[in-house]
Amino acid sequence: MSGGEAIRRGVFVSLEGGEGAGKSTALAALREGLQEAGYAVVATREPGGTPLGEGLRTLLLDPALATLPEAELLLMFAARAQLVRELILPALARGQAVVSDRFTDASFAYQGGGRGLDSGWIAELERRAAGIRPDLTILLDIGVAEGLQRVRSRGGELDRIEAERGEFFERVRAAYLARAAAEPARFRVIDASRPVEAVMADVRAALAGWLRSRA
Amino acid sequence: MSGGEAIRRGVFVSLEGGEGAGKSTALAALREGLQEAGYAVVATREPGGTPLGEGLRTLLLDPALATLPEAELLLMFAARAQLVRELILPALARGQAVVSDRFTDASFAYQGGGRGLDSGWIAELERRAAGIRPDLTILLDIGVAEGLQRVRSRGGELDRIEAERGEFFERVRAAYLARAAAEPARFRVIDASRPVEAVMADVRAALAGWLRSRA
Repeated sequence: MSGGEAIRRGVFVSLEGGEGAGKSTALAALREGLQEAGYAVVATREPGGTPLGEGLRTLLLDPALATLPEAELLLMFAARAQLVRELILPALARGQAVVSDRFTDASFAYQGGGRGLDSGWIAELERRAAGIRPDLTILLDIGVAEGLQRVRSRGGELDRIEAERGEFFERVRAAYLARAAAEPARFRVIDASRPVEAVMADVRAALAGWLRSRA
Repeated sequence: MSGGEAIRRGVFVSLEGGEGAGKSTALAALREGLQEAGYAVVATREPGGTPLGEGLRTLLLDPALATLPEAELLLMFAARAQLVRELILPALARGQAVVSDRFTDASFAYQGGGRGLDSGWIAELERRAAGIRPDLTILLDIGVAEGLQRVRSRGGELDRIEAERGEFFERVRAAYLARAAAEPARFRVIDASRPVEAVMADVRAALAGWLRSRA
């Protein structure tokens, strides 16, 4: 185990944000920051992160399957139930840091806000299937039109969720911001519409400040 | 639509039973009986029955994925949520008969009885994700040792669930019988340890008697 005996229990950091918010670069910054703080880092993503979860990811993003909202929600939590038990809890018990590209907040945003499913039902699934929340959640916030333009300028095919319409992503964004407002101690909201250097400096500063606050 | 205007709403029949109980032959008998009664019949199975569900079936039966009980339960209900909305409800609205090789009772038996997951949680998933129950459920009951011997005598590889131990299937059987005892109006329990001709005669008689009772 990296980090030595001083680290008794790991930390769980999630990264959230809409399409085109710059999550990939921010993930690398979080990984580096946690390593510099002495943690062995386990990076994962949702849906995915385990062999089962990656199989589910393929199904979830396939437009041909016409997956309905109720099924989508349960698949997300099935992948999450496996990820928590197979990877996240064991890593935390070893004192490692887990960085996840999306976690349960994404279900409240996409299946709750975006698809309109009942947030009380999502909260019940969170309690039963996930059982844990991140210690720190970085939310990269960007206007929907600007984020989608970034996604399209990348080129390539859009997956089933990226192909949704603008109003869907407006509801996703609003749900994310409502989550952040309801849990200010856990969330750091970062304006991701600025140049990447400024955004990444804020991501690093948010992580460093949070790590200091718990020392 | 086959059956004419007299049939206003279809019927939903499920077939349940442990390993080696003879479900394939019984399914054919149910299909024939419903056709003779004038129904267009839609046959399906769980997990499966839709493109998404068949993809999930492949994942669920793959021993390499080491799917945990909590994830297995949610995957079953994800497949079921899709099956109900994509296939079962539209068929019933057209006045057709749906015959399903397993439905929610199997989750109470396998994930509840077999894996020991909370039946209150399964009931909540049933309410939220399935929303309907079969009109008639045929349970083929057979002793665990005898059923497993039949499965093994077929030869071939066992899937992830067939490879469980005997005590798992004892709990599955007990959970099925408890479901049947709690809902005698919906269930017909048939002793599947007898010769196949006797079992199939009982399946046909159970269906015919039930159809007469609702005429």
